[in-house]
Amino acid sequence: MGKLKVVVLISGRGSNLKAIINKCSKKNVLAKVIGIISNNSNASGLKLTGDFKKIIIDNKLSKKRFETELQNNLEKLKPDLICLAGFMKILSPFITKKWKNKIINVHPSLLPSFKGLNTHERALKAGVKKSGCTIHFVDESLDGGPIIAQVETSINKKMSSKELSEKILKMEHKIYPEVVSLFAKKRICVKEDKVIIKDEKKLNFFIKNI
Amino acid sequence: MGKLKVVVLISGRGSNLKAIINKCSKKNVLAKVIGIISNNSNASGLKLTGDFKKIIIDNKLSKKRFETELQNNLEKLKPDLICLAGFMKILSPFITKKWKNKIINVHPSLLPSFKGLNTHERALKAGVKKSGCTIHFVDESLDGGPIIAQVETSINKKMSSKELSEKILKMEHKIYPEVVSLFAKKRICVKEDKVIIKDEKKLNFFIKNI
Repeated sequence: MGKLKVVVLISGRGSNLKAIINKCSKKNVLAKVIGIISNNSNASGLKLTGDFKKIIIDNKLSKKRFETELQNNLEKLKPDLICLAGFMKILSPFITKKWKNKIINVHPSLLPSFKGLNTHERALKAGVKKSGCTIHFVDESLDGGPIIAQVETSINKKMSSKELSEKILKMEHKIYPEVVSLFAKKRICVKEDKVIIKDEKKLNFFIKNI
Repeated sequence: MGKLKVVVLISGRGSNLKAIINKCSKKNVLAKVIGIISNNSNASGLKLTGDFKKIIIDNKLSKKRFETELQNNLEKLKPDLICLAGFMKILSPFITKKWKNKIINVHPSLLPSFKGLNTHERALKAGVKKSGCTIHFVDESLDGGPIIAQVETSINKKMSSKELSEKILKMEHKIYPEVVSLFAKKRICVKEDKVIIKDEKKLNFFIKNI
């Protein structure tokens, strides 16, 4: 059986990319990162080395031209799964429809709470008792596609947003590679816009309070 | 020390009202329900008996007249705490500013997720892994005031919205009276729009997965 071909889109340090690459290096994980695409030539995630293509698409291009170039590159790479990992650009339906149910993202909140930016500041301000991260399919809505996995953590009211961010980032690094691995095992599918995970009950990971 | 005087606003069966009345009947709870106000003369919650005033305000009145009458009644009752319990009317700043930090509400979701109506249907549709209920202060935003307490439950993907609703309602009946009791103990205060609960750590209730 061939490995699941993964392309990761980044804009910055690529810490989730790194976690995914590490996971894919394990023998029992049937996935491999075949390409990294960045809209930022200075993204330190581009410094990671391995058997994958690195592509930079100029962020100054118009949205249409940017996405045409992105689409051309994706067509060449033919990924089975596209992972957004700190990719700071919203994809239009031109991309999301072409790759429906093949693009996933990690968001540092328990969606649908705190979509968009500054999630941790807003979570602390709202006084929620827990926060966490969500892996979800990407559709035309902002941070709104079908939810695949969520992991939560209690909020200590004395926490700064930096501390909360760091805590949740560590959770992302665990859950995102895990979800990629589940894709490789063909355990994730979408039915009527809802995610079905085969044997989800055995994955206590998804409801664990890290 | 006098008891905390509580007025409860309802529109329907008043199951949370009943839970609060039951809690207040306990010796160690220094709170009592002194009034029930309903915008619906058929609300079955009005059939509950006890040492409290029952007031019906005509729902057909204009918002301004309705709230003037509500305010007049509240001024007479002089509650220390106003609990919205299935009260299906949004209060304007005319009321919320006059009773700032004295009105609380229960909402059947982990706010800020799923504000407004049809919360369970939307939670199931979104595929969130957990839902729950939130007790929060009422301000001029819809379901948006400072959060006091949240209790969560895992969502079983085969659950109907009715089942989820029933499960969460049971949680509301536990946590809402508990919060009223904490008010009576003067353990809840608001500082810079954030809720401070004295000795919150001892209240494992708030992070418990029921």
